[in-house]
Amino acid sequence: MDIFEQSLLLHKDLKGKLDVANKLDIQTREQLSQVYSPGVAAPCEEIYKDPGKVYDYTIKANTIAIVSDGSAVLGLGNIGPLAAIPVMEGKAMLFKKFAGINGFPICLNTQDTEEIIQIVKNIAPVFGGINLEDISSPRCFEIEARLQNIGIPVFHDDQHGTAIVVLAALMNFCRATGRKMGDLKVVINGAGAAGIAIARYIARKDPMAINQQLVKSVIVCDSISIIHSQRENLNAMKRELLTYINPDDIAGSVFDALKGADVFIGVSKANLLKEEHIRSMSPDPLILALANPIPEILPEDAYKGGAFIVGTGRSDYNNQVNNVLAFPGIFLGALQAKASRINLSMKFAAAEAIAAHVKEPTKDKIIPDSLDPTVATSVAEAVRSIALTHNF
Amino acid sequence: MDIFEQSLLLHKDLKGKLDVANKLDIQTREQLSQVYSPGVAAPCEEIYKDPGKVYDYTIKANTIAIVSDGSAVLGLGNIGPLAAIPVMEGKAMLFKKFAGINGFPICLNTQDTEEIIQIVKNIAPVFGGINLEDISSPRCFEIEARLQNIGIPVFHDDQHGTAIVVLAALMNFCRATGRKMGDLKVVINGAGAAGIAIARYIARKDPMAINQQLVKSVIVCDSISIIHSQRENLNAMKRELLTYINPDDIAGSVFDALKGADVFIGVSKANLLKEEHIRSMSPDPLILALANPIPEILPEDAYKGGAFIVGTGRSDYNNQVNNVLAFPGIFLGALQAKASRINLSMKFAAAEAIAAHVKEPTKDKIIPDSLDPTVATSVAEAVRSIALTHNF
Repeated sequence: MDIFEQSLLLHKDLKGKLDVANKLDIQTREQLSQVYSPGVAAPCEEIYKDPGKVYDYTIKANTIAIVSDGSAVLGLGNIGPLAAIPVMEGKAMLFKKFAGINGFPICLNTQDTEEIIQIVKNIAPVFGGINLEDISSPRCFEIEARLQNIGIPVFHDDQHGTAIVVLAALMNFCRATGRKMGDLKVVINGAGAAGIAIARYIARKDPMAINQQLVKSVIVCDSISIIHSQRENLNAMKRELLTYINPDDIAGSVFDALKGADVFIGVSKANLLKEEHIRSMSPDPLILALANPIPEILPEDAYKGGAFIVGTGRSDYNNQVNNVLAFPGIFLGALQAKASRINLSMKFAAAEAIAAHVKEPTKDKIIPDSLDPTVATSVAEAVRSIALTHNF
Repeated sequence: MDIFEQSLLLHKDLKGKLDVANKLDIQTREQLSQVYSPGVAAPCEEIYKDPGKVYDYTIKANTIAIVSDGSAVLGLGNIGPLAAIPVMEGKAMLFKKFAGINGFPICLNTQDTEEIIQIVKNIAPVFGGINLEDISSPRCFEIEARLQNIGIPVFHDDQHGTAIVVLAALMNFCRATGRKMGDLKVVINGAGAAGIAIARYIARKDPMAINQQLVKSVIVCDSISIIHSQRENLNAMKRELLTYINPDDIAGSVFDALKGADVFIGVSKANLLKEEHIRSMSPDPLILALANPIPEILPEDAYKGGAFIVGTGRSDYNNQVNNVLAFPGIFLGALQAKASRINLSMKFAAAEAIAAHVKEPTKDKIIPDSLDPTVATSVAEAVRSIALTHNF
């Protein structure tokens, strides 16, 4: 029986992977009167008088919504809100397992940007944060951006979860090889949610968090070619990228871009690369071949081509780039700080915490094990500390 | 320490009364691959091919949303969505305790009828049913009515929960006294959600469920007077009531209405009645004084005035009319049948099941104890059976 058959059986057996459980077993009339009418009027009135007390008396302080419209689910694409539920339940399990957070799946019967924004605003009261999930690009950028001022953190994991772990991997690649981040030549293949987020993190000058580009030479390729200024019909996201990527404005294919590059980050296409492409890069490159389940190049082939370190999205190879290293701790830290948003400083602090979790990065281990239960705690501490310092 | 102080301490201690729990503890990489990527793709694809399978592979089959806009919370009024959360969490606890159902609170940042309708439609995918709660009248009627065709049951408990238990009490009052339901003269004081629902249940000719009025003589009073045809400025709900209540179109006060009546159902005002008002009714009347926490008349005073049976909303007297007797079993039966709505036949079946649960109704017990854990099972069986028979 393969993993898919096993999973199907397990899902049929469980009939849903989550339970809403009572923290107190109601046994007596007195308990009933305390948790419900008439006693419950007391916390209601306290919150009515001082809305901040909602964090003391309700689940809000430790509960987030996992919101999806089912438009870009795993590698399955636009399968809609019903078929997306198993993924969102699984995500909720990870929030509970790694951070003790209550995650609840909210799958939306609409893929309209305005409706999604309005719904998230309106369901916010019960939640301390919103994890947006599997919403297709480019709508995901606008939806997330326009929800940054609703008073609780709104975080699109497909962008940031991956980008944060990739950033941690870059940091540790530099530690392991003695290279400087600023000098790296980085090629990103894929201009969806994750690809654009990675490019923004490492190449955009952002006055809020960092004063200069982390990496000066970043080239991004989409399914057509290198993104450069002469390309026609670029969408707004890709136009914005051009203000800080591809400084020499070169044209060509992803294979052209790879020549002499130090880092390849693939977030799109199975079996894209061969040994010879790795060989065309600068010596001892970092290859993050994150297409799932089949990476851009298998690690054994990348190593044959001269790769120094290879990471994939898969659990059966070393260096699994898995956003579970990021999102549980990030939300935990943000919730603990009652942060109103998760800003770039907090995201960078998370990346640094993940990187620092590996005492001595080697080719077999530049990022922590994705099942390591202590990572989320380190990440949460770093994120909380930044959030409290900056008083968000 | 009174019940309110106790409740406040308990809420502060618990920091939320609910937990989202994982049904399976993820210990191994293999389990992770089954509940999440990549294995989770299998149930996703099955549901994408056949949406009905969402009931086999996800929490939908046993999960409902408890939706409120915080506009009419307990006796506290329009305290808003944040202050409403403790009540909705308490409600969720009751769903779990009495029916094993996952209830999750959704408190809305809007009180706009159109927005609420649109949000409920759009968040429906994860839920097997929607319990509307503490939404003010008359918006509650329109919101519920316009959500009847979204494919899952939508049930406003403030209307139906109370009305179903009141109907059960009426049935058992007739059993205990040998009176016939059709001959009763009933006075309802209060024309909000519960009062209107009770009047509809017992006085409206509804072709779907019953061919004639259950009770021919029903008078409804609002805060001004008896509702009659010469009243000005009646809202649409009260105008509709007039097509089947007050057959002799009498005017006057609630005290005028009570003269010679067999049943008083109060759903509005503390300390409304005195002994003498009970004495003006027909001999051995039923008094359901449901205003909370202070009833329209205290049971001891009603008995002095000649009441045969008295029920209140309070747990410290016999005959507590508590909608917890209805809603857990009703949703359980509807979910088990995968009913697309909860219609009047199902509601009447629930009332009959609640009434039948009392083997021999007496003045001290016309309805079951609200903590009796076996009621929900009986109600669920009755509701499921009707739902399956009628193939909703």
